[in-house]
Amino acid sequence: MVGGGQLAQMTAQAATGLGIGFRVLAGSPSDSAARVAAGTRLGDYRSLADLRDFAAGCDVLTFDHEHVPTAHLAALEEAGVQVRPGPAALRLTQDKRAMRERLTALGVTCPRFAPVRNLADVQEFAAGGWPVVLKAVSGGYDGKGVWVCDSPADAADVLAHGIDLLVEEYVPFERELAVLAARSPHRQGAVYPVVQTVQRDGICREVIAPAPGLSPGRAAAAHELALGIAAEFGVTGLLAVELFETANGLLVNELAMRPHNCGHWTIEGARTSQFEQHLRAVLDLPLGSPSPVEPVTVMVNVLGGDGEDPYPRYVHVMAADPAVRLHMYGKEPRPGRKIGHVTLTGDDPAELADRARRAASYLRWGTEDGE
Amino acid sequence: MVGGGQLAQMTAQAATGLGIGFRVLAGSPSDSAARVAAGTRLGDYRSLADLRDFAAGCDVLTFDHEHVPTAHLAALEEAGVQVRPGPAALRLTQDKRAMRERLTALGVTCPRFAPVRNLADVQEFAAGGWPVVLKAVSGGYDGKGVWVCDSPADAADVLAHGIDLLVEEYVPFERELAVLAARSPHRQGAVYPVVQTVQRDGICREVIAPAPGLSPGRAAAAHELALGIAAEFGVTGLLAVELFETANGLLVNELAMRPHNCGHWTIEGARTSQFEQHLRAVLDLPLGSPSPVEPVTVMVNVLGGDGEDPYPRYVHVMAADPAVRLHMYGKEPRPGRKIGHVTLTGDDPAELADRARRAASYLRWGTEDGE
Repeated sequence: MVGGGQLAQMTAQAATGLGIGFRVLAGSPSDSAARVAAGTRLGDYRSLADLRDFAAGCDVLTFDHEHVPTAHLAALEEAGVQVRPGPAALRLTQDKRAMRERLTALGVTCPRFAPVRNLADVQEFAAGGWPVVLKAVSGGYDGKGVWVCDSPADAADVLAHGIDLLVEEYVPFERELAVLAARSPHRQGAVYPVVQTVQRDGICREVIAPAPGLSPGRAAAAHELALGIAAEFGVTGLLAVELFETANGLLVNELAMRPHNCGHWTIEGARTSQFEQHLRAVLDLPLGSPSPVEPVTVMVNVLGGDGEDPYPRYVHVMAADPAVRLHMYGKEPRPGRKIGHVTLTGDDPAELADRARRAASYLRWGTEDGE
Repeated sequence: MVGGGQLAQMTAQAATGLGIGFRVLAGSPSDSAARVAAGTRLGDYRSLADLRDFAAGCDVLTFDHEHVPTAHLAALEEAGVQVRPGPAALRLTQDKRAMRERLTALGVTCPRFAPVRNLADVQEFAAGGWPVVLKAVSGGYDGKGVWVCDSPADAADVLAHGIDLLVEEYVPFERELAVLAARSPHRQGAVYPVVQTVQRDGICREVIAPAPGLSPGRAAAAHELALGIAAEFGVTGLLAVELFETANGLLVNELAMRPHNCGHWTIEGARTSQFEQHLRAVLDLPLGSPSPVEPVTVMVNVLGGDGEDPYPRYVHVMAADPAVRLHMYGKEPRPGRKIGHVTLTGDDPAELADRARRAASYLRWGTEDGE
């Protein structure tokens, strides 16, 4: 797996369970996966030479992020490396404009969008109806690369960054949902229950599985959407589809083709974790059951707070709630950085969310604006 | 953790989840834990120098087996190493005679036993009532070091090995049970539901959690027994107590002070796995909830069969039963060797056991005598 972050770390745990050889290409020995996985190679995912060296020891190459240059992926594939998901699919997660165009061509409902060359394009798109959303065409994550603009002046500030942008309508959604599918080279598909995600400042904070009160019709529509996109885009591995739910239905907001924060709940909450599912899919093994284990699972991210080692605080959360499942990634706890998550399973979403938030706040301890 | 087998491997997965630094002292780079855990040190657990070197990088030293010489443990403890469980407790898992004597002194019911110097001792103990059981005082595991003798001639054959032995009554048990407790230096205790274990040829084959039809009185007695022994013996970490259930009650058969095969079901079946629980206990963190997640969990061991790589058979078990949880240890699949286990959770013990046995047999594929 190219990338040494927490997604690779949790995939390493799943690979251990399956007894499958698993190696990580990490940028630094302090990366979450590099700290724990034997045989980690250090290298730069932007270097074709590093990628080639790493791939030489692997049957299948996969990714914990979407930032490997498409040209490198194509070169590896031409050299006979099994790249999963393949370059044609991955390209669509690197280029939001291409992704939107492909989705629109498939008849998938997305926020209205347009390419942006200059401020006039943004003003024309807005047609007086502000706010609009400017997005970096590539490289964004966790809220980075997304700007809600209330005026032409705001838009001009963003344009001043000089990066490639597109403009989208600002969708007054009721809530955000996500659906996670897996697809194997044999074309088997499997899809997890639709979840509700709670984002703040563009960062996922909580996931409730399944999404409370979601109508069966919308859940089925979301499943169909995810499996359909996975098939049309030729995805192998996981596909995460982030959705806006509005009074009129579902809109596709973002796609990712890797284990995803919206699926961390599956470690305890589903019969097969997303990490194992990704491995099964890219190895062309039969997919595992995505069924939930208990009626409700709630996951809350732990963000870095005051910058200190969270370990001394384990005693608080463990003593207060012995049923909390703790996942800490071994990352430097910079403020606002995802350094772990907690999960609770049970019956009552509100009660579980309350307990999970308390646990996460014990682990953070420091203060954050607005909380 | 000293020892690089599957117990250390699964403990490494738990340590990753907790974000805790974890290192293994393994005998070989092909050991299960050495294959997957970063920073594994190679060394000999019988060498005090190797143990000292390894311990120098650790806050706490613990074990995946009971074979480290007691004198070494005492030397490490004297040098200020946190050895958990401590030498005084561990010694009782290395010397079955001392363990039986301590248990008897505590009033715990064990099989009747006696030390053995010669055949006359065995004959006197049997007093014409054969069979009797001869046991190696130290070093036995997985059925090794245990002999059921039907006659003085059988006993003479065992005595010819020249090892230190004790003799026990042959207990006509109804079934075997096990109970797993954890105890921390703060003296917090936690105990898992009592399980039924199925052994063949001295090797654990299946575990059903909780033990079907166990009376609440006996379950409570088993819990009290495990917590009592853990406290009296000063155990820190896990204590596994293997029991015989007879018409008259429970007898203690064996003890172990480490993660144990009877607790593998807890990875999916309990809110806290035994591996995380052991880490919490030896690190003096509050213990996790030992509550079951679903009404029934069944674990079946996968034994090596025809000696070939089991990976090509994954497709069968995964396609046949997508809900099976697979754990393969990356071990050379020698016939009869534990190379993995499968777990199923649900409601009906008989149905789950049937599915788990099928999955295990798919993975073994080869033949075994008597099956």
